[in-house]
Amino acid sequence: MNNYLLTLCFDGSDYHGWQVQSNALTVQSRLQDAIEQILGVRESVTGCSRTDAHVHADMFCCNMRTQKEMAPNKLQTALNAVLPRDIAVLSVREVPLDFHARYDCTGKSYRYLILNRTVRDPFLEKRALHYPRQIDTAALNCEAQGFLGTHDFSAFCASKSTVEDKVREIRACSVQRNGDLVEFYVEGNGFLYNMVRIMVGTLLEIDSGKIEHGVIPYILADCDRTKAGVTAPAHGLYLHRVYYE
Amino acid sequence: MNNYLLTLCFDGSDYHGWQVQSNALTVQSRLQDAIEQILGVRESVTGCSRTDAHVHADMFCCNMRTQKEMAPNKLQTALNAVLPRDIAVLSVREVPLDFHARYDCTGKSYRYLILNRTVRDPFLEKRALHYPRQIDTAALNCEAQGFLGTHDFSAFCASKSTVEDKVREIRACSVQRNGDLVEFYVEGNGFLYNMVRIMVGTLLEIDSGKIEHGVIPYILADCDRTKAGVTAPAHGLYLHRVYYE
Repeated sequence: MNNYLLTLCFDGSDYHGWQVQSNALTVQSRLQDAIEQILGVRESVTGCSRTDAHVHADMFCCNMRTQKEMAPNKLQTALNAVLPRDIAVLSVREVPLDFHARYDCTGKSYRYLILNRTVRDPFLEKRALHYPRQIDTAALNCEAQGFLGTHDFSAFCASKSTVEDKVREIRACSVQRNGDLVEFYVEGNGFLYNMVRIMVGTLLEIDSGKIEHGVIPYILADCDRTKAGVTAPAHGLYLHRVYYE
Repeated sequence: MNNYLLTLCFDGSDYHGWQVQSNALTVQSRLQDAIEQILGVRESVTGCSRTDAHVHADMFCCNMRTQKEMAPNKLQTALNAVLPRDIAVLSVREVPLDFHARYDCTGKSYRYLILNRTVRDPFLEKRALHYPRQIDTAALNCEAQGFLGTHDFSAFCASKSTVEDKVREIRACSVQRNGDLVEFYVEGNGFLYNMVRIMVGTLLEIDSGKIEHGVIPYILADCDRTKAGVTAPAHGLYLHRVYYE
């Protein structure tokens, strides 16, 4: 038995997220198709997380246990040759048999991209949220520091989530501007369903004045989803890095 | 009568270039559709140049003469509301009646984007040429200086071109690396059919050793298309700036 760790990058525009679904195109199903084509066996792959429909990944990790054996660099080249062009395998390496892409993950980071100018950018359609109103980046960066540390993130979790323990640790958080692009960056030990998108939606409502400045600590303490902002659209979100020991 | 100068930006991936063609989707036809929807008249627009199929534009200028009158900012907003999402109107302004987007153009610049790493980047599919072999950027930048100045560019022009005067002036030319991205930049008073793409194809063949170092001045002097390199693919090319007095 072998266990391979595959690191992917994908443009999620045309996918209904990572996880296999009936009647919907997903990254996992495309990858399993490619694996079947190369190895002759439809092996199952375990992802580091689910991702929502249309969310992108600068980096996404998954592992595959298989009886088949192939040199990692050959497996990478073969998969890249048959995968759709919007998914790439950045690396393949052999890992211990008990390695599990989700359980062994010690943290992740996300970035959320906002095009902050009046006119849209044709090159950022499906790649960034277009938000015309001028964002006070410095002010939002201060607000975002309210997420730092270990908190119950119930207020920043989609209500349909069934996860019981909603305590997560945020290790880094920032809002930065680069020309017309505003990027929200967040790194933590784990994330709840829609958590980053609700964080962004809340920050944008603080910017627009719909939510008061300085209340993020209180929203966290209340554990009430209705106190936080809307869920920002999926297409601005990128899973950025996945961390293991 | 009014004359409006429209500055556009477009992702050319899904278009057969700028100019209206029967049975092919072009940027000009989409823009004229939008104008007809807004003004109620199918006005014709004059572009600063043709662009090849799948070529992009950071900036593209065209002018429209019309009996209709509309405030420039209103026209811009209205057009952006109805245009496909891969075309944006960056600005609209009124210009003298005799202004002509092609004849009055005093220069243009192009950039050509190359992804120079082993693995493809899903986010740069249709946006950059994927060239896995490591490029010696500094060496190519020296080679590219051979294009500077006023020359007969017959060797760097598609053979089917019917333009008589093939003398053009190149004012700036460079090859620069930014991480895995290599960018060829060129600015001149005008460009022949496929000229930038043949310049890039030639530079890449110099890099791979198929064409000797230092021969660009000789290829120019020979005026022989067969001495230059292949025409690089369209999807890495961006019309970058369009200059007027």
